[in-house]
Amino acid sequence: MPSAVSPLAPPEVPNMPVIAGVKLATAAAGIRYQGRTDVLLAILDKGTTVAGVFTRSKCPSAPVEWCRAKLKGGKARALVVNSGNANAFTGKTGRQSTALTAAIAAKAIGCGANEVFLASTGVIGEPLDATKFDGVLGSLADGASTGDWMSAAEAIMTTDTFPKVATATVKLGNTAVTINGMAKGAGMIAPDMATMLSFIFTDAPIAAGALQSLLKSGVEDTFNAVTIDGDTSTSDTLLAFATGAAAANGAPKISRASDPRLNAFTKALREVMADLSEQIARDGEGARKLVEIIVEGAVSKASARKIAMSVANSPLVKTALAGEDANWGRVVMAVGKAGQPADRDKLSIAFNGIRVAKSGARDPSYDEAEVSATMKEPKIQIRIGLGLGKGRDRVLTCDLTKEYVAINGDYRS
Amino acid sequence: MPSAVSPLAPPEVPNMPVIAGVKLATAAAGIRYQGRTDVLLAILDKGTTVAGVFTRSKCPSAPVEWCRAKLKGGKARALVVNSGNANAFTGKTGRQSTALTAAIAAKAIGCGANEVFLASTGVIGEPLDATKFDGVLGSLADGASTGDWMSAAEAIMTTDTFPKVATATVKLGNTAVTINGMAKGAGMIAPDMATMLSFIFTDAPIAAGALQSLLKSGVEDTFNAVTIDGDTSTSDTLLAFATGAAAANGAPKISRASDPRLNAFTKALREVMADLSEQIARDGEGARKLVEIIVEGAVSKASARKIAMSVANSPLVKTALAGEDANWGRVVMAVGKAGQPADRDKLSIAFNGIRVAKSGARDPSYDEAEVSATMKEPKIQIRIGLGLGKGRDRVLTCDLTKEYVAINGDYRS
Repeated sequence: MPSAVSPLAPPEVPNMPVIAGVKLATAAAGIRYQGRTDVLLAILDKGTTVAGVFTRSKCPSAPVEWCRAKLKGGKARALVVNSGNANAFTGKTGRQSTALTAAIAAKAIGCGANEVFLASTGVIGEPLDATKFDGVLGSLADGASTGDWMSAAEAIMTTDTFPKVATATVKLGNTAVTINGMAKGAGMIAPDMATMLSFIFTDAPIAAGALQSLLKSGVEDTFNAVTIDGDTSTSDTLLAFATGAAAANGAPKISRASDPRLNAFTKALREVMADLSEQIARDGEGARKLVEIIVEGAVSKASARKIAMSVANSPLVKTALAGEDANWGRVVMAVGKAGQPADRDKLSIAFNGIRVAKSGARDPSYDEAEVSATMKEPKIQIRIGLGLGKGRDRVLTCDLTKEYVAINGDYRS
Repeated sequence: MPSAVSPLAPPEVPNMPVIAGVKLATAAAGIRYQGRTDVLLAILDKGTTVAGVFTRSKCPSAPVEWCRAKLKGGKARALVVNSGNANAFTGKTGRQSTALTAAIAAKAIGCGANEVFLASTGVIGEPLDATKFDGVLGSLADGASTGDWMSAAEAIMTTDTFPKVATATVKLGNTAVTINGMAKGAGMIAPDMATMLSFIFTDAPIAAGALQSLLKSGVEDTFNAVTIDGDTSTSDTLLAFATGAAAANGAPKISRASDPRLNAFTKALREVMADLSEQIARDGEGARKLVEIIVEGAVSKASARKIAMSVANSPLVKTALAGEDANWGRVVMAVGKAGQPADRDKLSIAFNGIRVAKSGARDPSYDEAEVSATMKEPKIQIRIGLGLGKGRDRVLTCDLTKEYVAINGDYRS
């Protein structure tokens, strides 16, 4: 299904270091795709803590419900991810399937089923035959190694055109700890084609509660500030695992998110999350432009977010961007429809730093040729000034192209 | 700009009767388009009452602000509509332009500027040169006749592919009264390309306050229940004019919307509004399918509306419909993201009466070939059962095709 690599793919792929306490393995279980890997098993050392953030959908997938329930234990020994079938809207069968998958993994690894975390992405509404994991997870457990992060990121792809990884190394106390992350996206989010999944691993010794706080506060301006098409998957999942292996090298054990020794780690974690979420925008289905929308001068950050999302999700703004048209009239429209405080006559709009509208009318000084040239860039920043208060926010999106319609319309599931 | 007529255009155009007290005239003022009419003048007899409903945009156009202010008087003598320039986001110039247009029309007709109503649709952010109306409106006033409703509906088009009219004749007391309506749509709504405008005329003698109540209650399940792309124009305008001429034939003068003699009229008015709003869905930009979304069993009508709109505005549902794919997984996704009460395991979904999902899973009895065949129909009904309560709602939309992207992306404004 993946087509040519997005022209917005990052030019360089980072070298992914080992995370002590994490072993990875992938396999082709033939769940839906042929000729590619579709199962990832991550094995986590004893003592690994876990935190998670999930879709806000009222109709979540069976694996999301599974993870939510198991998160209470705060401990993880394994992560099993499959692509090709989302195990969503599968009723009782879906719940049985998650239980069976976890049982198979628990047996292969020698842990409790409650310590196995699951994520599935792919077709919705089709029963996931968990017996397919039966032989597979055992072999994976035997062959797992500290090694290949790129293969892991590839195994979880659906319509993604490139694997998404990010890494950071930072001091915790006087000890270097590492954070590795991977993600998949593509639509934000088609249950049948995409779904945002992201998994983050670190050797830092951080208690589950503290890790959960970090994840929750970090997600707001990273994964939750990205939209491809305004659609929300039944399966969106972000899980973070902390093996604690760095404690053996002297890293302090952290039990509270407010611990000042965490500052550098918190910042690095956020950067990994921001990096991965930006890669999701860069790989939006059919995307040809990475679009950053900055709203300033709103009455609050929450109001700025709503306005930024209204612009980011407007089909008319997104098609104009695909057409390389600095159509600020559509931006005005999208600001107006957001239902948030806005004063037309104080509004200003700039594309890539070139102000095209101010004080509720066209900026008489702007140079049409200059604006036309900048709209050809692969990255477009729309800066909207409301002139009302100090609320500011930023979201990332991409343009809406005929390829998006083709990817999502030119096939039969 | 308009391309081939939408395949969803109504096969028959109604014969539009005369409305006593209304005269129409159109002209080509060259505001933006060449070789077509772009100004409509409707002259209304003394005593005509007026009601209006407008965009909820926080950044409304200058004509919307003008009409809102003038509506307080409750009286109308003229309506001036131009296509090609929306006079939106034009700052002080925009306000001057509306005042000047109204003054020119008032002079041509011999009425107060406060009795002139205005609507503009077209490019946003460009000053509207109202002096262009100077000679034009005088000639139009001289040549206006009771006649040509189709020409009137054509003059207000932008990316519409067919003019939209509807009519009804009904008894008020023992006297026949007539309701004529026209509308334009296309995107719902691009300020630069489309905008929903609708004008309704009747000879029934109805006080402004009563007319306003009828309009407001009627709009909820007609114009407000249609979405093309979830975008809201700065200029959406619905105006109703009642000349009262039928009083001369014995029609009773109505002062309250609750007057039981209005029942048949109210129903007919609603039918005209429903007809016009359905035509807007039928002429959505790039539309190849008329899509009706019915939500039943919600906790309330308001909740059903939010869920229906979430489905109607989902790019993934709309692209699936364009692909003739009965992709109920995406419907589940859109129900889930609406944020309204929904129980995944009670959900049922049917396409054109064929149930594909029930009790939170695929309906084992459905026939894939039958569903595939029905998805090729030009009209698709998606019926969603929530099984929670008695809330029900219905909205109309269309599919999202590559043509929509082309219309809105393949040009420079």
